[in-house]
Order: sequence, then C-alpha cells, then structure tokens
Amino acid sequence: MDKKLWLNGKLLSYDDAHIDPRDRGFTLGDGLFETMRVRAGKVMRLEKHLARLRRGADVIGLALTWENDELHEAIYQTLRANQLENAFVRLTVSRGVPSVRGLLPDTENANPSLVIQVGQFGGYPAELYQYGMSTIISSIRRNEHSPLANIKSLNYLDSILAKQEAVDKGADDALLLNTAGNIACASMTNIFFVKDNTLFTPPLNDGALPGTMRAHVIGELAPMHGLSVVEQSISPAEISQMNEAFLTNALMGIMPLTSVDEQDISSGIPGRVTLLLNK
Amino acid sequence: MDKKLWLNGKLLSYDDAHIDPRDRGFTLGDGLFETMRVRAGKVMRLEKHLARLRRGADVIGLALTWENDELHEAIYQTLRANQLENAFVRLTVSRGVPSVRGLLPDTENANPSLVIQVGQFGGYPAELYQYGMSTIISSIRRNEHSPLANIKSLNYLDSILAKQEAVDKGADDALLLNTAGNIACASMTNIFFVKDNTLFTPPLNDGALPGTMRAHVIGELAPMHGLSVVEQSISPAEISQMNEAFLTNALMGIMPLTSVDEQDISSGIPGRVTLLLNK
Repeated sequence: MDKKLWLNGKLLSYDDAHIDPRDRGFTLGDGLFETMRVRAGKVMRLEKHLARLRRGADVIGLALTWENDELHEAIYQTLRANQLENAFVRLTVSRGVPSVRGLLPDTENANPSLVIQVGQFGGYPAELYQYGMSTIISSIRRNEHSPLANIKSLNYLDSILAKQEAVDKGADDALLLNTAGNIACASMTNIFFVKDNTLFTPPLNDGALPGTMRAHVIGELAPMHGLSVVEQSISPAEISQMNEAFLTNALMGIMPLTSVDEQDISSGIPGRVTLLLNK
Repeated sequence: MDKKLWLNGKLLSYDDAHIDPRDRGFTLGDGLFETMRVRAGKVMRLEKHLARLRRGADVIGLALTWENDELHEAIYQTLRANQLENAFVRLTVSRGVPSVRGLLPDTENANPSLVIQVGQFGGYPAELYQYGMSTIISSIRRNEHSPLANIKSLNYLDSILAKQEAVDKGADDALLLNTAGNIACASMTNIFFVKDNTLFTPPLNDGALPGTMRAHVIGELAPMHGLSVVEQSISPAEISQMNEAFLTNALMGIMPLTSVDEQDISSGIPGRVTLLLNK
C-alpha cells in the first residue's frame, strides 16, 4: 500500500506531496505542530492537542482556516487511508507562502499550509521504561522570556542540539535549564519529580511547555492515586532531595528518569510512584 | 520570463520546485540561511556569507555537501537565469528528509536540501534612510545562552514576533534585549551607537549575530573614517548618552535609528557619522 499524507485538503502519496520552497514554515520556522498518539484507532486527547494548537496560533497570530471538526476528519481520514490503528500523528501548520517578502506575516491574507503525517508507532525501547533514562544537563538554556517556550512551534533547533549533546556524552536525553538556572524540561518532554506523596514539576513560566501528558498527570492521574502536585521552580541542586523522577510526552507517556549528569536519582531505578502512574 | 530557483542541483521554475513535507527544515526549523545583496551582478561579501554558513553548519552538525565554488556557481547561475543585476539572494540549507524519525539528526547519512532564491531588490523606502527607523524595545528577550544566537538558523519566530509587536505599536522595528537586559540586536539587524568618534556595538556573547555588514563596519568602514569601535554590553539606560545610532544588515546596509520607545536618540534625526558611513 502506498503511504499517504494529508496536505491542504488532499490525501496524497509522499511523491505527490510538495511544500513550496517559499513556505515560511521552511524559510523561517514560522509555524506550529502537534504530535499525537493513536491507540486502537483512537487519537488520544485530540481535543487537548487542538486546543493547544489554537493557543499557539493565537500567540503567533496565525489564522487557522480549519474548524476542529475538519481537523478531526482530516486526521481520521489519513489514519484510515494508511490502515493504522496504533500510530503517531504529526500535524504541522505553517504560515504558508507569503504574498510579500520580509519578516512580517501578511495577516490580512492568511494562506497557511496544513500537513498531517501518520505512521506506525512501535513505541520506545522497553529497556528505557525498565531502567529509566539517563540525562545530562545541557549547556543550552531554554528562554523562558520568549512566548515560544509555551507553544509547540517549529523552532526546534535548541532541543535538537541539546539532544545531540546528550547522545555525544553517552546519555539518553538532556535536561534544559532556563536562563534563571531552574529546570524547565527535557529535549522533548516535561519533567516531574516525586518526593513522598507529592509530585513537583516546573511551572509554565519557568519555560515548560503545557504538555498534554503533563496536564493528564496533573489533572487526572495524580488525583486518581491520591498524589498532590506542586508546580514550582526546581533547581538542579534540589534533585538530590527527590525520591524519583519521570519525563512525559504524548508518545512516550511516562518515562522513568533515573540519572542526571551521571548521578543516580535516589537509588537509580524507576520509582514506585512512576511505575504506579505508568500502569 | 519564468522565474527560476535552484533546488538541489537543478534550476527549476517555482511550480516544479518542491520541498518534501518531511524535510527537517520544514518540520523542525533544522537548517540555516544567508541573505545576500547583489549589485551590478556581483554578490557582495559572498565569501563572508559562505564562511558564516559553514560556521553555522559546524555548530548544528550539518554536513554541507557542496564546496564553496559549487555554491558560487549555483548562485551566479540562478542570477543569470533570472537576468538579475540588482538583487537579493536567499540561500537556505536544511537537514533534508531524515532516514529515521525523532529529534536526533542522522549525521551518518547527510542528505541536506539546498535552495537558492533570487529576486529583484527594490531597496527599502527612502524615507527610512532620510528620517531613520523608530523602534520599540520588544517584550521578547534574545537567548544569549543558546548557540542559535550567533548563527543564522531557520528558527526565526522570535524575530517575527518582535517585528509584529513593533508594527502593532506603530514603530518600524523592535530592539531585542538579551536575558541579562542588555541590547542584543534589532529583529533582523545588528545595532551600533555613536558617541563622539567611537562606535559601540554589542559583543557576540550578548546575543548579537556576527553580521557581514557588522564586520564590514568594524573592519573596514570605521577605520577608513578614523573611528574606533568598542564591542561592549549596552543597556537601554545608556541610549540617552549616545549621539546617534544605526542598524546594519546585508540588504539594508546602514540604516539610521532615530528613536526607541518614542524617545528620540539625541535630536531624533540621522547623525553625522551615520550619514558619513552610509555614503
């Protein structure tokens, strides 16, 4: 079967799907994306992803020319066309081809591009969930003084470089501090620490992305297990006082984090609360 | 005449030039660009632009698979195909279509995309040079703690949002402070201040891009006119002590800057040194 993707209202084979080289998504990173998990044919937390997409679009002044039900329909059509049940969905919206050159978007003539890509989701290696991820603290700081810190924009080079730095040092991933020196997130996940029966996670104004899985942990999973959640600044020095840690995003779910800069977190194995939340 | 652009070794019409929607330039802003000025058929400071491109490629670990003479040839072929003498050149290099999903680039299998776009350069409005640009100080801070601050990457949303903020407030452009509160640059230019016979400009580690026109001012224009140049941190409070200011980039050249947040710089007209350098 020929694989298909959705591009601006059409289901196309990859050979026929073209982005214009002038598209501001390509020339300036001017756009947004969402990555979603599909289980048994159902897109998990789709409404939450689309709500975040719309908040991001408001922040960058990008007019989304599709209603939510059109986006639903497009996503499910793409999944059906590829006969996928256990999958990822990557939805990308860019500002499209501009009518005039220059930095300033032409907000009068909205012409966004919409790409929906899907693929089989094989999951992350079982060993990572079993032993937990090792991390370094990246030399790159996350800019909590930019609105981009709280939206899922196409400007992902800082995260790419942080991830590369981690792998070069033999670690699985990188933690990014913000410019004040507090922990913001990992290269593509939110972060939680556990101490007794409380979860601690960086607040959004420390540069954390409002992750859909983060919201799920805070709003549903933690209360369900009688855990309280505190959003507060966390410095690297405080890690040693924590009992456990985990990372979250829509595809990974809840991933144990067991070391930072070669120091084990507590006993260096996935913690009780992490395993409980991950059941 | 049908307009042509260069894409991965071919001169193509815009209708035939396609970027794959999986290209990491489009999906993650994973790439670099250069914008160059062409006068009388000659690309100004081409070697400097290509040197900066290569430094940027080193920083993000992107293997450029073209030699400088191939890039020269491609740029000039594109200019000739469009019969342009007074033009801009925009060269974009992206990481291309990845062999595997995920943040980490596959550095073993380099597969970059190269786009060279050219167009007639009409110049900026004469009134801007005559009266100077008005600016605001953007609410967005530039992250001097990221290697991206010193390379010309495709992650341009902060600049786009700062420019939009300026225009929304009735100004021509925005100055960006770094996270320490010192002036880094404007949305797409370097910045210089003049006091007596000395030019002051933010150092690279304050988040300034190593601009080709900035280097030309420091290395050639200033010495030619007996002016000294000091690279030092400049806070917004120091602006009131300055006699003049100007902005620089490859396309604008030297642009007078005459107000910041509705406060005139000195008498609010383009200064003597600015005009001298711009001759």
